[in-house]
Amino acid sequence: MARPDPASVRRVACVGAGTIGGGWAAQFLSQGYDVAAWDPAPDGAERLRAQIDAAWPALEDLGLAAGASRDRLSVTATLAEAVERAAFIQESAPELMDVKIEALAEIDAAAAPDAVISSSTSAFSMTDMQVRCARPERTVVGHPFNPVYLIPLVEVVPGAKTDPAAAAWAAAFYERAGKSAIIVKDQVYAFLANRLQAALWREALYMVRAGEATADDLDRCISEGPGLRWAIMGPFLTFHLAGGPGGLGAFFDKFEGEEEAPYSRLLGPELTPELRAAVLEGTDQLVGERSFEDLVAERDRCLVAIHKALAANRGTG
Amino acid sequence: MARPDPASVRRVACVGAGTIGGGWAAQFLSQGYDVAAWDPAPDGAERLRAQIDAAWPALEDLGLAAGASRDRLSVTATLAEAVERAAFIQESAPELMDVKIEALAEIDAAAAPDAVISSSTSAFSMTDMQVRCARPERTVVGHPFNPVYLIPLVEVVPGAKTDPAAAAWAAAFYERAGKSAIIVKDQVYAFLANRLQAALWREALYMVRAGEATADDLDRCISEGPGLRWAIMGPFLTFHLAGGPGGLGAFFDKFEGEEEAPYSRLLGPELTPELRAAVLEGTDQLVGERSFEDLVAERDRCLVAIHKALAANRGTG
Repeated sequence: MARPDPASVRRVACVGAGTIGGGWAAQFLSQGYDVAAWDPAPDGAERLRAQIDAAWPALEDLGLAAGASRDRLSVTATLAEAVERAAFIQESAPELMDVKIEALAEIDAAAAPDAVISSSTSAFSMTDMQVRCARPERTVVGHPFNPVYLIPLVEVVPGAKTDPAAAAWAAAFYERAGKSAIIVKDQVYAFLANRLQAALWREALYMVRAGEATADDLDRCISEGPGLRWAIMGPFLTFHLAGGPGGLGAFFDKFEGEEEAPYSRLLGPELTPELRAAVLEGTDQLVGERSFEDLVAERDRCLVAIHKALAANRGTG
Repeated sequence: MARPDPASVRRVACVGAGTIGGGWAAQFLSQGYDVAAWDPAPDGAERLRAQIDAAWPALEDLGLAAGASRDRLSVTATLAEAVERAAFIQESAPELMDVKIEALAEIDAAAAPDAVISSSTSAFSMTDMQVRCARPERTVVGHPFNPVYLIPLVEVVPGAKTDPAAAAWAAAFYERAGKSAIIVKDQVYAFLANRLQAALWREALYMVRAGEATADDLDRCISEGPGLRWAIMGPFLTFHLAGGPGGLGAFFDKFEGEEEAPYSRLLGPELTPELRAAVLEGTDQLVGERSFEDLVAERDRCLVAIHKALAANRGTG
């Protein structure tokens, strides 16, 4: 394989230009790439340009890469034209298995042999989608979050026939392109973040169904409650701080034996010594060198800054 | 009842001064109240003052109310002294049912007859806790989130013997005291926000147990992914935007029949016409007069501001 250094990539392709594909195009343009895009819709080019124009003020505000320009976008007449000279191709076709399989096969046939092909699918396995690719070893999932150009996370997931080097290359490329990449090694359905999000969402739907709360109450509960913390730290660091100076271990002690308590429709797993150890080890990684007081002070500074940021930017003004 | 206007309250009491009780004291002091606090621990006063000192820079940065001062704190020798002249009493005793019942009974006996008593419990029902109060009609749950002085949400929940007017008064008082109050009418276990949080947390624990992900990967998945959005909008508005211009209705159409798909250990409820209508109605309330484009632009402005806020405040500096 003559795959280039991820840092040397200059030209990428976006196949499919809906909300997600258009978001990718805006992200890549803001980072200074040449972007070739293709979408089968008759008004695809028009919608894509409108979407990039809507995203551009935010991207300018955050700071464009040197040389970044919306003029680096080309909308091609065919899929093959978009992908043939790209070192990296992001596929964002509709979320239907047949459509994904077909789109990936077409991209695979038209792309340079060493180009990496990444799918925006939010749940499908690359193992299932790469079945008609002649070179499945360079296909990965690269699952983003909406809006792609402002939410850093992308989950990189190889399929059964994917070369692990291609997944590592994709993750390195995404980091160069301003994203925050996590390689998901397990073939878990819907990957990582959407599972956490789905658990919360489904509990919310059950609560509305049972008349326990309205959708607007539940939305406020997140954005005026735990959601503010989750912009800074995930559930493990959050509960590490909730444990006080004893940290997550003290938190576990406090809730020992409460796995069956009806805190949600989903009951908890038994907190075995093994699970406890695995969680505490991961949380130690997150904490790093920071003391409990450091973490509290950092959280508080970030929360103050988020409150000010929201107060200055809420509303339609 | 000679209950004063919530706006006229000048003196409040905090019973229990751990992480939560101390956070309440900091919040009330920052809003200009006289705060009388009591904690049974020998070093309770010392720890409370240290906690308020740690919180104060953040509160100053956000802006103190006129006349706010840490000098308005008095730490009393007895529970009765703390509560006897307060119009509002926040109970933050340890989360054990016997302790809560006893603390509320003591407060009830010592407080002025029209004072409102609110418990910081994170899951217990006031129906169960108010059993030894002579005046249970003025007792409510007022459940906050850590850190109390920077997360606005407080869930106000009446018990079976609570006068609805007392719950309404507590909510109005909390709003005056800089909090964002939601009255929870249903006697659902653990109220609203903690159920959503627990569903996410339990799914995360299952994923660690199954080896699908590590705690540090999962934490990053939230804070670099959906967590950034949740600081701005909850799950309903988030998926309203994920539906594109068709909104949450289009989102439901896209995932129709996927209730049983293993997006999380918790399967979804059937999306009946009634549930769909209830959710769309609540989401309409959230959207208000804003167009889809307005919402997208507002979200993007807020995300840019949050990115800048976090970039400037991360680390121990």
